[in-house]
Amino acid sequence: MEKGRLEAFSDGVFAVAITLLVLSLDVAGPGHGSSLVHQLGDQWPSFAAYVVSFLVIGIVWVNHHTLLGKLARTDRTTLFLNLLLLMFVTVIPFPTHVLAEYLRTGGFDAKVAAALYGAVMEGMSIAFGLIYWWAGKHDELLHEHVDAAAHRAGFRRFTIGAVVYLPLIAFAFVSPVLTLLAHFVVAGFYVFDRTVTTAPA
Amino acid sequence: MEKGRLEAFSDGVFAVAITLLVLSLDVAGPGHGSSLVHQLGDQWPSFAAYVVSFLVIGIVWVNHHTLLGKLARTDRTTLFLNLLLLMFVTVIPFPTHVLAEYLRTGGFDAKVAAALYGAVMEGMSIAFGLIYWWAGKHDELLHEHVDAAAHRAGFRRFTIGAVVYLPLIAFAFVSPVLTLLAHFVVAGFYVFDRTVTTAPA
Amino acid sequence: MEKGRLEAFSDGVFAVAITLLVLSLDVAGPGHGSSLVHQLGDQWPSFAAYVVSFLVIGIVWVNHHTLLGKLARTDRTTLFLNLLLLMFVTVIPFPTHVLAEYLRTGGFDAKVAAALYGAVMEGMSIAFGLIYWWAGKHDELLHEHVDAAAHRAGFRRFTIGAVVYLPLIAFAFVSPVLTLLAHFVVAGFYVFDRTVTTAPA
Amino acid sequence: MEKGRLEAFSDGVFAVAITLLVLSLDVAGPGHGSSLVHQLGDQWPSFAAYVVSFLVIGIVWVNHHTLLGKLARTDRTTLFLNLLLLMFVTVIPFPTHVLAEYLRTGGFDAKVAAALYGAVMEGMSIAFGLIYWWAGKHDELLHEHVDAAAHRAGFRRFTIGAVVYLPLIAFAFVSPVLTLLAHFVVAGFYVFDRTVTTAPA
Repeated sequence: MEKGRLEAFSDGVFAVAITLLVLSLDVAGPGHGSSLVHQLGDQWPSFAAYVVSFLVIGIVWVNHHTLLGKLARTDRTTLFLNLLLLMFVTVIPFPTHVLAEYLRTGGFDAKVAAALYGAVMEGMSIAFGLIYWWAGKHDELLHEHVDAAAHRAGFRRFTIGAVVYLPLIAFAFVSPVLTLLAHFVVAGFYVFDRTVTTAPA
Repeated sequence: MEKGRLEAFSDGVFAVAITLLVLSLDVAGPGHGSSLVHQLGDQWPSFAAYVVSFLVIGIVWVNHHTLLGKLARTDRTTLFLNLLLLMFVTVIPFPTHVLAEYLRTGGFDAKVAAALYGAVMEGMSIAFGLIYWWAGKHDELLHEHVDAAAHRAGFRRFTIGAVVYLPLIAFAFVSPVLTLLAHFVVAGFYVFDRTVTTAPA
Repeated sequence: MEKGRLEAFSDGVFAVAITLLVLSLDVAGPGHGSSLVHQLGDQWPSFAAYVVSFLVIGIVWVNHHTLLGKLARTDRTTLFLNLLLLMFVTVIPFPTHVLAEYLRTGGFDAKVAAALYGAVMEGMSIAFGLIYWWAGKHDELLHEHVDAAAHRAGFRRFTIGAVVYLPLIAFAFVSPVLTLLAHFVVAGFYVFDRTVTTAPA
Repeated sequence: MEKGRLEAFSDGVFAVAITLLVLSLDVAGPGHGSSLVHQLGDQWPSFAAYVVSFLVIGIVWVNHHTLLGKLARTDRTTLFLNLLLLMFVTVIPFPTHVLAEYLRTGGFDAKVAAALYGAVMEGMSIAFGLIYWWAGKHDELLHEHVDAAAHRAGFRRFTIGAVVYLPLIAFAFVSPVLTLLAHFVVAGFYVFDRTVTTAPA
């Protein structure tokens, strides 16, 4: 499997998924009794969920790039684990939309929506970790200049999401709003973290 | 026709089609009488159809890549046969959505929906087989290192879908749910099958 | 302007536009009184319009590739003429949807819908012709191996759409259904025409 | 971070965002009492907003390309500033849709819609300016052949939008229709401006 086309396909999927998020932003239109300012104000969960999901997909894209940059070749398993990761990425607009719809209701539905959101993030993290783990186990997939020990150290950092998102699923039943905020903080951690190193173009 | 741009366009179409599948996942929103947990539970056909269609598009993308990797050049016929294949790929979100909507009704509509799903898969398999057949007939399209005999052997395996999907259309009228399961199994066969070999990047 | 990125962006736009066509295919869902078979049958204009628009976008993509293949460089004017072309390409899902909605009504609305469809095709052809004309006028944009005289001869063939689509706008007021058929025939002409030559990858 | 994949991802996002604009064009369908001609006429704000937003995204894409062309490498900060820019680009279909819905109402809602549109443009301009500013501050990111002084001069021109869009937010409360026209004029300025130079492919 040529790595370039895997990257091109993955980039396309990330780009479409991140752009489809906008479809969950909507207003009722004129003649529905409520002023536009009021409608936009009522929709703050949509905007908050939009920003968090955008950040998450953007960061996973960055991490995905970093991970693939370490690979010299891909095998069938990498390919299908990558499809599994992309399945969780493409589904993100759905829990984002559900959370935006239910967050303001405040009841049990809001908690379920926040838990669903966390569960998709957890699944995505696990899929990401699986690719990382598989590549680490098969040194022949890695570029020669990639230190296998460093790769395994990076594994711990990259898969921190899989550990962090798990309590967030439970925390959704305490406070859905704070759960969304926590997802934002986790995403922010990746933005300011220095792990994802950058190389010359 | 430069092969690179054909691949780039095809990758783009596959990426958009696989991501649009998420649009068939939806909830009624708060204030519709039914709890979110109940709604999500009722929607299991949507999730099942989502996973199966995602797998199918992903696998066809892998096979498409393998097939194009064997081609040294493309001609006009390949180009338009590829457009025919892409037409079936891009339409997949429609039968997926129809199946998700009607699967739970259990009546004749559910059977028609499952048959429609199978018919689109059949059309896609035939279009795929046509590209394979055309390339095999015109050895000058193949890379020199591709053994024409091996290509024809691969043809039999790749086009197995065209044979398998046909009885699945009929089987839809027996059990729509089991038909969807059968589509999942066929897709799984391709995931674990060793035919699609992988090469260094 | 690096030509590669113009191609990549254009390919992306073509790929998304051709895939969004599927969004105009829909069914009312269970519980709306009408059987699925009946609904699918009633929707033949949607399927017909889908196939024609898919073919048109696919063919314009092929022609776009051929045209850009002749260019050695691009200038600002090419860039914005290309944006104009892409604007007509991306809008195609709209007249396609309108035509699918109104074709069966048979009244004046159906004629307007068919005329709108033709008008968008006409605009697209004119934008395509403008790029072709501009490149032909500025020989320094063409690859050295491209014969400027042959380019101008190709111009006549490529822009035949701009001439053909004009009477089709008027013909829409005679028979919307036959107009859609005529669009299919025009598209078919491009598929079987030998003008678009192909080169080794 | 390899610049090529950043460009590929950005191109994908631009391509999807510019194509999703078409989803805000819609008609009520037959049987809603209003003729198609009447409906299309009533929808002129949708078409006007479509054209302006298409132009804006197209121009930002051109400017984005020019800016990245000057960079020899990217760092983490560029990467996340680019994500911020893309977040504003992908959100554009939303204010476009809101403006199209409310422009004809003429009341306070129309003014809010026009101000929202201007605010998103302002945010996009600021994000664009931040990338430009960061690259100018870190000469090691620029290609050697890029004159740092010229880069800073270009900065003033590129970020003119950030200055122009601010009064347009205020002007929205005077006349929403003229505000949309003003956005069109600003976009036109970029089309005919000679700043964005072009280089051989």
